[in-house]
Amino acid sequence: MDKLFYKSAYEQAQKSLAEGGIPIGAVLVSDNKIIGNGHNQRVQKDNPILHGEMDCLQNAGRQKNYKGMTLYTTLSPCMMCSGTIVQFKIPRVVIGENLNFDGNIDFLKSHGVEVILLNDIPSIKMMKKFILENQELWNEDITE
Amino acid sequence: MDKLFYKSAYEQAQKSLAEGGIPIGAVLVSDNKIIGNGHNQRVQKDNPILHGEMDCLQNAGRQKNYKGMTLYTTLSPCMMCSGTIVQFKIPRVVIGENLNFDGNIDFLKSHGVEVILLNDIPSIKMMKKFILENQELWNEDITE
Repeated sequence: MDKLFYKSAYEQAQKSLAEGGIPIGAVLVSDNKIIGNGHNQRVQKDNPILHGEMDCLQNAGRQKNYKGMTLYTTLSPCMMCSGTIVQFKIPRVVIGENLNFDGNIDFLKSHGVEVILLNDIPSIKMMKKFILENQELWNEDITE
Repeated sequence: MDKLFYKSAYEQAQKSLAEGGIPIGAVLVSDNKIIGNGHNQRVQKDNPILHGEMDCLQNAGRQKNYKGMTLYTTLSPCMMCSGTIVQFKIPRVVIGENLNFDGNIDFLKSHGVEVILLNDIPSIKMMKKFILENQELWNEDITE
C-alpha cells in the first residue's frame, strides 16, 4: 500500500510544480484512507510555513490524535516539519528521497518515529531539476 | 523594548481568548518594528498547525531570511514551533513563561537560539486558568 499512497504525495508535488510552486507533496493516511493531502504553498499563497507536510496536516484538520497514521512526503522533512511530526506524535513517515535535502531522519528516529526511505527515482529527478533551475527560491524555502 | 513588544504578544493571546480560542499569542519583530502577529487558531480556524508562533510567521509572509529578528511568544514553544524557529534561523526568542508548558528551551539553545524567559505573571495566570477550564482542548493542542 505504501507505493500507492506515495503516488498521491508525488501527484501533489507535480500539482505544485504545474502551479509554478515548489514540487513537494504529502498525504496523511489513517486506516488505509487518505484524510489529508497538500503541497508546498510558498509561491502560491505567499506562505513560508506551508511546506508540503504542513499544508497536508492543515488540510486534514483537527485530530484528537495521530495514532496509527502514516505521513507520506516526497522529500526528507526539514526541522519545522520534523518537529511537527514529533509534536503531533505521528508514528510513521514514508519519505520519497533525501538526496536533494538531508532533512532530519535521525532526529525523527531518535524520537521513536518509524521512517521508511523509498529512494524514489522520479522524485529525485524532479527535485534535482527544480533546485538547479530555481536556486534562489529553494534557498529561501530552506532558509539558506 | 522587549516588554513593549511582549505586550503585543500578550494582547494577541487575549484576543484569542475573547474569540473562544486558546490564549497563546506571538509577534515577530524586525528592525524594532512588528512585521507579523498572530495567535493560536485551532478553535477559530479548525487548524492544528496554527499555534500562535506559526500564525504569526504565516501572517508575516515570505522573508528572504530572519536575520536580526526576534520572535515574542506568550508560552514556551512546542516541538513544531521550536523546529520552525531553528529551520527559519530566527536568532532570538522572548518567551512569556514555561510553567504551564515546558516547551523546548534547551533544544532552542542547543541550536544557537538566544532565549529570554520573562516569567510574566499575567501570562502564567491566564494560561493556568485556561488549562484548568479546558483540559480536553489543551490536551488536543499538545497531542497528549
